[in-house]
Amino acid sequence: MTSYNLLILPGDGIGPEVAGEVEKLVAWFSNRGTVRFEVEKDLVGGAAYDASGLPITDETMQRALSADAVLFGAVGGPKWDGVAYDVRPEAGLLRLRKDLGLFANLRPAICYPALAEASALKREYVDGLNLVIVRELTGGVYFGEPKEVVTLENGEKRAVDTQIYTTHEIERIARVAFELARRRQGRVASAEKRNVMKTGVLWHQVVSEVHKDYPDVALEHILADNCGMQLVRNPKQFDVIVTDNLFGDLLSDVAAMLTGSLGMLPSASLGAEDLVTGKRRALYEPVHGSAPDIAGQGLANPLAMIGSFAMALRYSFGLVQEADLVEKAVANVLAAGVRTKDIAAPGAPTVGTAEVGDAVIREL
Amino acid sequence: MTSYNLLILPGDGIGPEVAGEVEKLVAWFSNRGTVRFEVEKDLVGGAAYDASGLPITDETMQRALSADAVLFGAVGGPKWDGVAYDVRPEAGLLRLRKDLGLFANLRPAICYPALAEASALKREYVDGLNLVIVRELTGGVYFGEPKEVVTLENGEKRAVDTQIYTTHEIERIARVAFELARRRQGRVASAEKRNVMKTGVLWHQVVSEVHKDYPDVALEHILADNCGMQLVRNPKQFDVIVTDNLFGDLLSDVAAMLTGSLGMLPSASLGAEDLVTGKRRALYEPVHGSAPDIAGQGLANPLAMIGSFAMALRYSFGLVQEADLVEKAVANVLAAGVRTKDIAAPGAPTVGTAEVGDAVIREL
Ligand SMILES: CC(C)[C@H](C(=O)O)[C@@H](O)C(=O)O
Ligand SMILES: CC(C)[C@H](C(=O)O)[C@@H](O)C(=O)O
Repeated sequence: MTSYNLLILPGDGIGPEVAGEVEKLVAWFSNRGTVRFEVEKDLVGGAAYDASGLPITDETMQRALSADAVLFGAVGGPKWDGVAYDVRPEAGLLRLRKDLGLFANLRPAICYPALAEASALKREYVDGLNLVIVRELTGGVYFGEPKEVVTLENGEKRAVDTQIYTTHEIERIARVAFELARRRQGRVASAEKRNVMKTGVLWHQVVSEVHKDYPDVALEHILADNCGMQLVRNPKQFDVIVTDNLFGDLLSDVAAMLTGSLGMLPSASLGAEDLVTGKRRALYEPVHGSAPDIAGQGLANPLAMIGSFAMALRYSFGLVQEADLVEKAVANVLAAGVRTKDIAAPGAPTVGTAEVGDAVIREL
Repeated sequence: MTSYNLLILPGDGIGPEVAGEVEKLVAWFSNRGTVRFEVEKDLVGGAAYDASGLPITDETMQRALSADAVLFGAVGGPKWDGVAYDVRPEAGLLRLRKDLGLFANLRPAICYPALAEASALKREYVDGLNLVIVRELTGGVYFGEPKEVVTLENGEKRAVDTQIYTTHEIERIARVAFELARRRQGRVASAEKRNVMKTGVLWHQVVSEVHKDYPDVALEHILADNCGMQLVRNPKQFDVIVTDNLFGDLLSDVAAMLTGSLGMLPSASLGAEDLVTGKRRALYEPVHGSAPDIAGQGLANPLAMIGSFAMALRYSFGLVQEADLVEKAVANVLAAGVRTKDIAAPGAPTVGTAEVGDAVIREL
């Protein structure tokens, strides 16, 4: 029986609660006996900081490096607002992304017809929405140097962040987007600000160049501000959107909120394929954050986290049937009206985190 | 009779068409005889490039520097996609902003109840929406150096943009936001990415510091990605949003699109008050762009441009009654159902650019 090595990093806020429901699933699969997961659990973010003074320790990084997949909850919260910049909770996530080389972040924004009412947008604008944002995740302003605050002679402070992109960084993320579009509706929109930014100029150039290898995919260049607008005006016009780290951060949040089902959306962050083993490093995480306001109350929707586990089954472990099974169970649970507050129909009864997890297990 | 010096820069695309309707208004005020405008018109953007090889000439800049207010249409279009970066149409607008010192860009997003249907959002989310984005306009990644594309030894290219903010740049824009909030609902949301960017860390610090001078105003710090989300989830929670140049670009476009009335939204870009004369340099422009797809067809909605002129009357010329008069006329025209295609009710008849301008004049 094959055994897969899974590292679970619940993190902060609602992270541990939603991760707990995935542990139930893992146990279910292990009991079933056709597949075995070696599960390790560890700290990240504020929880790791509280325990060790670091948002992720070298030992945890070692575990992440040797895992077949990492399942990540969420990090951050007002509790750690005052900690030093270098050891803030988010630095743990950023180190994972960087040191695992997870340059490709896939963020689907899917509107479940059953949940379309929860969107602020009119049903016809979002019903059936199915787009993916392919966000570059290890470059740009997130990691460029200099990145500093200095005090000037006159006593003023001066802060600097540096956005850097090289040809190969843009090339590889463009390829991910084109490959993905091939297996979808065959359309890529590349978003940048080439009218203001030199990284946008290079982005536009390189994406156009890579496009020559994908003549069967339609490419549109769109300014990032206009992309934000178009996401609100008519989101269904998009299939795959490829963009840089910072624009991807903003645009994927806007796109996620359009669906009205933020608590439903998983994401995958992938590294390059290993030339020998054919494996990719991967981290899976829900699109929602740590939601400190509802943490610890058993109210969080675990479906985005469960969906992230399904993505891991599919993409990291090649367990396609098992992934289908989980996703089917989620759909059935939704159809049966078992819902946390965030996605409840007006006036309908709601259940807690554990009830949703249990319902998914029952469906399996 | 007081005379005011107005420079009109129609620019590209639908710019000249919508600016033409403002010229009618100017003529109407001049004929009326209580106020006189010295109007100059000049080229900017692609139109200027075609004429001179530059997106704005030194002579035009001189005119802008000595005008009481600049009225700007829009710049850019596919025609100039291939021109060199330094002389692209947008560089004309950026030079105006920088050389006039227009650090404060006020972008109201107002949803006219009569037009709420045009929004992709459900009526209850946007009806009565009235927020202002205060965008820093002369700093950040738009102007920081280095900003370049270099070729590396291995033949790859490397592009760099630099985001820089100093204490006083953040301080003065924060003051604009707090002052404005005082005259509105008294709430400021400050958006940055302090969890990732050092400029965000400084932004957060300085805004908190300036807030001490405005204890009567409520301040909330919000991450820029979450701000994008919240704009879609519940836009009416906001009063004034203050943010940097790049986030302001994106967030104001998202906010504008929420209203469903993009063709209705004016904006003002203001400089510092002159200590001697008490005057501020100012440029007024519609939030919409050059819309090359409908340019030259007489279809564009001139109301954002007319609203920008009303803002100039109010803020640069102190002609409050005249500004009220124009805004009243616009409201009446809307109420009478005289509408261009972008804001027409489904199935209702539409009119062209000139008809809307004429209708406003009739209402006056
Ligand atoms: C937590 C934070 C560092 C992170 C980011 O900015 O990338 C988050 O917003 C995300 O989108 O995953
Ligand atoms: C035309 C362009 C340079 C400009 C900007 O990016 O600031 C525009 O998008 C705007 O928002 O005024």
